Amino acid sequence: MAKIVDSGHSMDKSITLPPDEIFRNLENAKRFAIDIGGSLTKLAYYSTVQHKVAKVRSFDHTAKETEGDPLYEISMQEEMSARLHFIKFENAYIETCLDFIKDHLVNTDTKVIKATGGGAHKFKDLIEKKLKLRVDKEDEMTCLIKGCNFVLRNITHEAFVYVKHADSEFRFQNTHPDIFPYLLINIGSGVSIFKVESEDTFERVGGSSIGGGTFWGLGALLTKTKRFDELLQLASKGQHTNVDMLVKDIYGGSYGSLGLTGDLIASSFGKSATPDKEFSKEDMAKSLLHMISNDIGQLACLYARLHNLTRVYFGGFFIRGHPVTMHTITYSINFFTKGEVQALFLRHEGYLGTIGAFLKGAEEDNPNQYSWGENYAGSSGLMSTSPDLNPMQRARSGTFDMLEMDRLERQLVNLPLLQDPSSYIPDTVDLSEDALAREYWLYCFEEALDGVVKRAVASQPDLPEAAERAEKFRHKYQHKLQTLRHQPL
Amino acid sequence: MAKIVDSGHSMDKSITLPPDEIFRNLENAKRFAIDIGGSLTKLAYYSTVQHKVAKVRSFDHTAKETEGDPLYEISMQEEMSARLHFIKFENAYIETCLDFIKDHLVNTDTKVIKATGGGAHKFKDLIEKKLKLRVDKEDEMTCLIKGCNFVLRNITHEAFVYVKHADSEFRFQNTHPDIFPYLLINIGSGVSIFKVESEDTFERVGGSSIGGGTFWGLGALLTKTKRFDELLQLASKGQHTNVDMLVKDIYGGSYGSLGLTGDLIASSFGKSATPDKEFSKEDMAKSLLHMISNDIGQLACLYARLHNLTRVYFGGFFIRGHPVTMHTITYSINFFTKGEVQALFLRHEGYLGTIGAFLKGAEEDNPNQYSWGENYAGSSGLMSTSPDLNPMQRARSGTFDMLEMDRLERQLVNLPLLQDPSSYIPDTVDLSEDALAREYWLYCFEEALDGVVKRAVASQPDLPEAAERAEKFRHKYQHKLQTLRHQPL
Repeated sequence: MAKIVDSGHSMDKSITLPPDEIFRNLENAKRFAIDIGGSLTKLAYYSTVQHKVAKVRSFDHTAKETEGDPLYEISMQEEMSARLHFIKFENAYIETCLDFIKDHLVNTDTKVIKATGGGAHKFKDLIEKKLKLRVDKEDEMTCLIKGCNFVLRNITHEAFVYVKHADSEFRFQNTHPDIFPYLLINIGSGVSIFKVESEDTFERVGGSSIGGGTFWGLGALLTKTKRFDELLQLASKGQHTNVDMLVKDIYGGSYGSLGLTGDLIASSFGKSATPDKEFSKEDMAKSLLHMISNDIGQLACLYARLHNLTRVYFGGFFIRGHPVTMHTITYSINFFTKGEVQALFLRHEGYLGTIGAFLKGAEEDNPNQYSWGENYAGSSGLMSTSPDLNPMQRARSGTFDMLEMDRLERQLVNLPLLQDPSSYIPDTVDLSEDALAREYWLYCFEEALDGVVKRAVASQPDLPEAAERAEKFRHKYQHKLQTLRHQPL
Repeated sequence: MAKIVDSGHSMDKSITLPPDEIFRNLENAKRFAIDIGGSLTKLAYYSTVQHKVAKVRSFDHTAKETEGDPLYEISMQEEMSARLHFIKFENAYIETCLDFIKDHLVNTDTKVIKATGGGAHKFKDLIEKKLKLRVDKEDEMTCLIKGCNFVLRNITHEAFVYVKHADSEFRFQNTHPDIFPYLLINIGSGVSIFKVESEDTFERVGGSSIGGGTFWGLGALLTKTKRFDELLQLASKGQHTNVDMLVKDIYGGSYGSLGLTGDLIASSFGKSATPDKEFSKEDMAKSLLHMISNDIGQLACLYARLHNLTRVYFGGFFIRGHPVTMHTITYSINFFTKGEVQALFLRHEGYLGTIGAFLKGAEEDNPNQYSWGENYAGSSGLMSTSPDLNPMQRARSGTFDMLEMDRLERQLVNLPLLQDPSSYIPDTVDLSEDALAREYWLYCFEEALDGVVKRAVASQPDLPEAAERAEKFRHKYQHKLQTLRHQPL
């Protein structure tokens, strides 16, 4: 681990700043899973959180409401609930992170860590030595697909289409039980392309060496900027047309008979062979991002066409919710398939392998089924810390990235009265997109407010401040409805 | 043309060194064609060359040979024959080259220059002003395909398969009348991919911005080396494994279950994000060449599979007979298609568009058909100046490249006595590959030598030096046969 010694100072600084915030609830951590790629490590652990829960007991509703009788009984209880933590950091920090985990891991009887990704082999000895856990290797492809299937099925608004100039850039897809078949393009340091036909039928159909590591490596050489996220920042400020040779630079316009517009890139970096000219870091980073995203987009569409697939999901930590990347990939796929193939991005693109490895362990330990729901407050993923934030601001620091999921104690199942549960799709309406439906429901909630307030006051006849608290609630609730009317997202 | 002013000195030097050698027979030049791409200009013109021809008249062969009677009558004549000249230079030199042509063009009644390529639009006014010729634009794709069909049909050993570790790296294909269907990957500044089904049925099916201009542009930024051929030289000396992240760098070995060997590139430039490390120019150039060639190889194979084509030709000036490029593309195609698709390179890859444009003009001027054969002495193409030379040494200078073709005054046709001319394939044997056949034919020639010498002496009974000259011939011929025995290429 020469790298750690070389750059010890800057690394220590990065790691000492946010550890408590990043490695939350490590004291009670159980069941670890780790996914080590060519550049990044993704760690998952499961822990318990204590929190207060208000238990509500409702009295007989069928009886006529009588003034003075309590309608509800509310009691506060301390409860332990399970939470899943996902953390991403650069491989260069792996030794420091393992030390930190070891120092803070107190109440665990865990003996095993599930490990996947290429680095599971390479770092096996280091992990076993540091954490005193036995590394249990799981196949990378299997974990990746398992994780992808899991988020597609379980996490609300996981997948989305990116539309650059639309009112809302992100068109979220509802979870849907029929997720197969699909193509998964996993963009890590390199690119792997998987055809997924069912839970157990999947295959690596292709790959490319031009991936996230190429953006990072070539970007570092060209701009002397060593951080991936800084490179993305540079790219978002650049003009690729200063570096790329466009169709119009060669033809003086478009090449109409071939359907090539003048603004199309004819040759990436085609202008930079010019002697004695300087190119800005921003422009080079933008050109590089275009080059790589376009190439991946074209490969994705060719493999989709070759295998007759229309849904293409993008996983891996290259994309990071970066608008230029998503727009270029989407544009590229639309260009090459004339809209026949749909590019779908994932909010938790980088954690698919870790999630899969964790689930492998969880299934072995505890075959009971339960559901997981995202803890928005603890995740740093796209749109999750705050829906208004620019997706660029998703990470707490450039080095770390987090996702948290809470366990629901029962498995979510379809209503048993349904005639055909497998074909049942909940009749949900995306109120952020349907203005008419939104207005209708906000009106309903406003209309119901008076009744709710009256009922709340009535339920606590002995408390003199009940009326005052109910008014406060009414005000707050109304304000919230107003906010939703103006900012539906 | 600011570039010319900027770097006037070095350019003047390049252009003043070899002009007579490059622009040969310009005095009598007729019929011009020009193909201007994003980076390079390819010029073709037709000219006449005067040379001595020995005319042989044979006397009655059926009569019995009588001592003293002449068997042949030989007379020397001056003849004019047509020669096609093709020259390539960088777009930066176009103004200087046009000036040179104008100054040396004396005996021409040509009024029109056929022009194709993107630059035909951009440089139209400049060409018309300088050469006082009317620019007659021809569609780029049509010219390219026409030129490709022409070389495949007419030029012996035009197409070849590249095999890195074989005795002879180049496995030349015999010309064959059935050339369709095929895929043509034209790698200029960018990449264009064409599906060619017949003389008139072809289509641009795809393209990529990662091409020759990317190698040149990114290479110049990374290595500060501005010349394309110098970049190729650097690449041939580099170790890409110092810069690329290999499968074994991630996995510590191969990823057997996915069939990925340890030496496979997982991420191009994946190692160069490492802080504070220097990378050599040679290594970076090699990694870049691998990245681009692999990408083109993969796209070629995907388009070939998508369109059910098994023959893929590579055109454009990116390849230049460079072994690393050809090997990487061939390897990539074999890897992705498991040998189902064959990568075929062309000796005159860069001139396809120019040849096509020239033929367009020639057909319009003179509908009579005739054949063209390559003038090996005047061409700088792969294997043509000297078969023993490394293909890297093909160019007379890094800036210019040449091809010459001589016109045969009659169209070469199939023997009219053939039963089915369309299916006739001449029964040729490649003596450079078949050692047994080579030995047999060399033996036949040696055996026949005595008879030939005797006949030669007998044909000139009145010349006292005839016997001496015949002996010299015998010696020279025998020496040549010996050389061929040891160096069949």
